[in-house]
Amino acid sequence: MHLYKVQDQTVVVVDILRATSCMTTAFAHNIQSITPFANLPDCLALKSEGYLTAGERDGKKVDGFDMGNSPFEYMDPLLKGKKIAFTTTNGTKAISRSIGAKDIVIGSFLNLSAVVEYLRKVPTNILIVCSGWKGKVNLEDTVFAGALVENLKGDFEFACDAPMIAQRLYTQAKGDLKGFLKDSSHIKRLERLNIQKDIDFCLKEDEYDLVPTIREGVIMSVKP
Amino acid sequence: MHLYKVQDQTVVVVDILRATSCMTTAFAHNIQSITPFANLPDCLALKSEGYLTAGERDGKKVDGFDMGNSPFEYMDPLLKGKKIAFTTTNGTKAISRSIGAKDIVIGSFLNLSAVVEYLRKVPTNILIVCSGWKGKVNLEDTVFAGALVENLKGDFEFACDAPMIAQRLYTQAKGDLKGFLKDSSHIKRLERLNIQKDIDFCLKEDEYDLVPTIREGVIMSVKP
Repeated sequence: MHLYKVQDQTVVVVDILRATSCMTTAFAHNIQSITPFANLPDCLALKSEGYLTAGERDGKKVDGFDMGNSPFEYMDPLLKGKKIAFTTTNGTKAISRSIGAKDIVIGSFLNLSAVVEYLRKVPTNILIVCSGWKGKVNLEDTVFAGALVENLKGDFEFACDAPMIAQRLYTQAKGDLKGFLKDSSHIKRLERLNIQKDIDFCLKEDEYDLVPTIREGVIMSVKP
Repeated sequence: MHLYKVQDQTVVVVDILRATSCMTTAFAHNIQSITPFANLPDCLALKSEGYLTAGERDGKKVDGFDMGNSPFEYMDPLLKGKKIAFTTTNGTKAISRSIGAKDIVIGSFLNLSAVVEYLRKVPTNILIVCSGWKGKVNLEDTVFAGALVENLKGDFEFACDAPMIAQRLYTQAKGDLKGFLKDSSHIKRLERLNIQKDIDFCLKEDEYDLVPTIREGVIMSVKP
């Protein structure tokens, strides 16, 4: 990421398992906003201002937080109109590093087509930021990046080989996404935490028709 | 690369187009040694000590050097027994960053099986260092890493998703390596320099049965 300046770009933040999938799900259930934090204390501090606190560390819900990092926790009708303070191991760090970009978009398989439609209209270059796991590349975020590239081919040129690598992985994976990802390190880690149901849901394409974007540090939802 | 300590590892340095392919070819033609340098002046200084100087910047031979970065320049019978001082845009930088490793091996498609046999016997973990292009990932080095992973599967476990990504690209590419790589940024760059013959040669598997390794900063050849 340090090789690209974010200033002139539209950045797509990707953390399929599970931060950006949760965020997308939350907006589909009419929450008002999500404020992302890279560290726990800043996030917790907003509790006294009426925010719900949400997030995980090492895949587990944080003690004292209202919600963890399962998309099913964000489907509650009582969340309507609420503001959420959110922190996760990798996803919110990717967001902090994207601050300063022309535009920041939250991407997941759950809103794939909506994100593609949104990106097709942006007047800037696009930088897809895969959160990965503690600084390392991961398979599921890369495959999602490939889904964006595959759907946007013809509209953009490649700035390097990374989008091509992602695209080729996606074309290999798309018939059986779950099978393709089953040996990935993150899925194995999550399986040890018994959240197969979350994984299955996060790999569904186009459940929701919305695009969360970041305006002045706060994530809001726009229709594509 | 900064996420892994090189100290306890066997490092495989990969720069398919064209540094590690040239080095492999040179040893197959009986040169005595190659001393890699990350910068030009250090490399040039060895000329006065009887070394041949070799290498490129931005894909082109350096003015005043004896040889550039085409494998065909390293097939001359007159090279037998000679010592070479070598510098390239990316390959020798990858080597400098690997210094301190338990062992350093030079890998290319030209000596794929020899490298696989060598690695199968090492008692350490393996870190495959793809040189890429000016800090960016590239397709051909990643696909070669995948060839190593595919051939060594069963002998090693994955430390992260990167080897799996490389492996899956290789399984997709191996029937038609040239076709798979034709849109990569580096191949397009080299095609502008008219070196299709070099590319074709660098993608040949198992031309040579030898493994260049680095001992005290100098590359020598060993039989696998």
